[in-house]
Amino acid sequence: RINGERLWQSLMDLAQIGATPKGGCCRLTLTDLDKQGRDLVISWGKAAGLSVEIDQIGNVFMRRPGRNNTLPPIVAGSHIDTQPTGGKFDGNFGVLSALEVIRTLNDNAIETEAPVEMVFWTNEEGSRFVPVMMGSGVFAGIFPLEVAYAATDTEGKTVEEELLRIGYAGEARPGQHPIGAYFEAHIEQGPILEDQDITIGVVQAVLGIRWYDCIVTGMESHAGPTPMAMRQDALQVSTRIMQEVIAIANASAPHGRGTVGMVQVHPNSRNVVPGSVKFSIDFRNMTDAAVDEMDAALKTFIQQLAGETGLNIELKLVSHYPAAPFHPECKEAVRRAAQQLGYSHMDIVSGAGHDAVYMSMLAPTGMIFIPCKDGISHNEIEYSSPEQVAAGANVLLHAMLESAGV
Amino acid sequence: RINGERLWQSLMDLAQIGATPKGGCCRLTLTDLDKQGRDLVISWGKAAGLSVEIDQIGNVFMRRPGRNNTLPPIVAGSHIDTQPTGGKFDGNFGVLSALEVIRTLNDNAIETEAPVEMVFWTNEEGSRFVPVMMGSGVFAGIFPLEVAYAATDTEGKTVEEELLRIGYAGEARPGQHPIGAYFEAHIEQGPILEDQDITIGVVQAVLGIRWYDCIVTGMESHAGPTPMAMRQDALQVSTRIMQEVIAIANASAPHGRGTVGMVQVHPNSRNVVPGSVKFSIDFRNMTDAAVDEMDAALKTFIQQLAGETGLNIELKLVSHYPAAPFHPECKEAVRRAAQQLGYSHMDIVSGAGHDAVYMSMLAPTGMIFIPCKDGISHNEIEYSSPEQVAAGANVLLHAMLESAGV
Ligand SMILES: NC(=O)NCCC(=O)O
Ligand SMILES: NC(=O)NCCC(=O)O
Repeated sequence: RINGERLWQSLMDLAQIGATPKGGCCRLTLTDLDKQGRDLVISWGKAAGLSVEIDQIGNVFMRRPGRNNTLPPIVAGSHIDTQPTGGKFDGNFGVLSALEVIRTLNDNAIETEAPVEMVFWTNEEGSRFVPVMMGSGVFAGIFPLEVAYAATDTEGKTVEEELLRIGYAGEARPGQHPIGAYFEAHIEQGPILEDQDITIGVVQAVLGIRWYDCIVTGMESHAGPTPMAMRQDALQVSTRIMQEVIAIANASAPHGRGTVGMVQVHPNSRNVVPGSVKFSIDFRNMTDAAVDEMDAALKTFIQQLAGETGLNIELKLVSHYPAAPFHPECKEAVRRAAQQLGYSHMDIVSGAGHDAVYMSMLAPTGMIFIPCKDGISHNEIEYSSPEQVAAGANVLLHAMLESAGV
Repeated sequence: RINGERLWQSLMDLAQIGATPKGGCCRLTLTDLDKQGRDLVISWGKAAGLSVEIDQIGNVFMRRPGRNNTLPPIVAGSHIDTQPTGGKFDGNFGVLSALEVIRTLNDNAIETEAPVEMVFWTNEEGSRFVPVMMGSGVFAGIFPLEVAYAATDTEGKTVEEELLRIGYAGEARPGQHPIGAYFEAHIEQGPILEDQDITIGVVQAVLGIRWYDCIVTGMESHAGPTPMAMRQDALQVSTRIMQEVIAIANASAPHGRGTVGMVQVHPNSRNVVPGSVKFSIDFRNMTDAAVDEMDAALKTFIQQLAGETGLNIELKLVSHYPAAPFHPECKEAVRRAAQQLGYSHMDIVSGAGHDAVYMSMLAPTGMIFIPCKDGISHNEIEYSSPEQVAAGANVLLHAMLESAGV
């Protein structure tokens, strides 16, 4: 079993860097604070005897050799960058539980067959630079290094210059690093485990995501003198699409998700019938085929609505992330670990994107979820208890040992 | 008949002050440009032999004596302040057609029984200082002079200091000025006259207006990991209210109006289920009783929806303007004038608020509408033709002559 107190202490120590008054953490990717966080985690890895490899996008791998070092390593990790008003656990828990696994192997002088590694990926959050999951995306060849390098923050600074500035533009080519299997422990970021009073979520897949912008164009007119029948009210038509987004997701239970999170009304004046409305749509589902069905249902609805109302309705795909079903062996390894350790557990899906999505395209991948209070994340009040954190790390330990071989 | 060319020329000359590149006019109330506009109109009034009275809120009355000056004057006018991207006609047409009526009386040496006056009211538009229809509101005793004086613009300047600065804080107590009858000629600001190809609208009433803010509070949550059934989506619930606003207005045809013009979603992020939404509601109808019915229907719906969804829904009244039915004699004077002059005409209501609303509480009041292109106003492309403008001023002339007596 891992040392729960040591793991908790490391989580609290790392959260000091960028600590916020409300108990959260603000450590945006590639800032001075991120550098301090990276330096601290690397110093812990070195103290645990690990060798360090940094690639050109700043992903950091730390290695504990096995008996047979020609085998690809069993890797665990996540990210240490946070949201602007982030918490102590999102990402950090996955990285530090991997460190705790290695410390536990050292404490017990356990030799593994394959080497064991911990990793933290650059810019998972995407708060400062888009796209999200940047380090793992470049590593998996989803987008080129040059595209990631050219991404700018609101001040116009690029990823490349910030990586160089903080000294984390490494030498290794991203993706050239072998991975035997990848495990990521993470807080659930949702309400299910807590609601069901379950300790461990055996993650089956990450939902596929499709993001759109929808723009409805009608005709601006004065709210007083324009009779109802002579209006081309862009908001009124938009509300019908917004409701259909929810209806489509409800019709695709239990894994369908539909969200309109962002709305912009023009000219946004109390006594003007809106001339145009732009809003976001977020569709998620268990398989790419299921997301395609939601997409098709939405497009059919919109086409009909445009015909019926005469308004122009534009639907633009902003980005998409394929569904990532996890590897049967990794899922089984997580499930068996939870069973052996006597933790209550259930199958669950990840509604949120994670670095594990891209890793699953390269290697057998699995994820371990622990509950978080009220399902809240991306918030300074994000919280999991010491017991929950320790349980997740114990499952990670056992799953990795099974994969690496002892 | 009035001199159409002279009226058109005056409209174009006044629109030079604050002219915008796209052919509109930006002459916000109590600015240097407003002072220039006021000075110009007063110089024209003085050239026409009128005496000038300015009251403490900056309303300007200009008087042509009658045979019997103990009779209260027949007054016509409107406002000369504009929206930031306003046009040449809104307000200005009412003021300058009143001037043209007086010029025509002079040209033809017509003596009236009662005195005849033109007026322009301070800050009808409300773009720089709220509330709208400020000068006529203070004049009618709807709100105290002190409240109007204390209103501030976005830079913190008050109405009082700006009135003093431009030299238009007069001596007369607002409301102490007698009014025998009031006429206001105005562009329709809506599509009906143009749609029906009618020259003159005989305005029956100004619709009553009720403005609300509605605030729906749910629970912010991550769009991915939160199952549909576990959400408290403030936007989803808001869209049902937004649709009900329209449904209530449609059920109250032909004069019911319902508009949601302004929406603010929190936190307004693509992958966050909205935690709260604030939006405006604008209800209008022919009578106060009809507006009350809309209000009651909305409140019933909201109460039921709050019960059904468990979300908190707050409805705050922001302001209201009572319905203003016009005086039978004034309506008849306008109708007869149109008939005598051979103009096509129809009964119409004003969906937009005007200074005539407050005047109707003090004296017999009527309004004359002329068509405007595509029903567009509050826009630099606002347009009525020289023929339409002349027709409106001719009707004003005849209606005023009938009221003043010759
Ligand atoms: N883990 C996480 O919050 N990812 C952000 C992308 C998303 O799933 O919306
Ligand atoms: N005439 C006019 O546009 N008034 C503004 C107030 C309103 O009716 O919405």
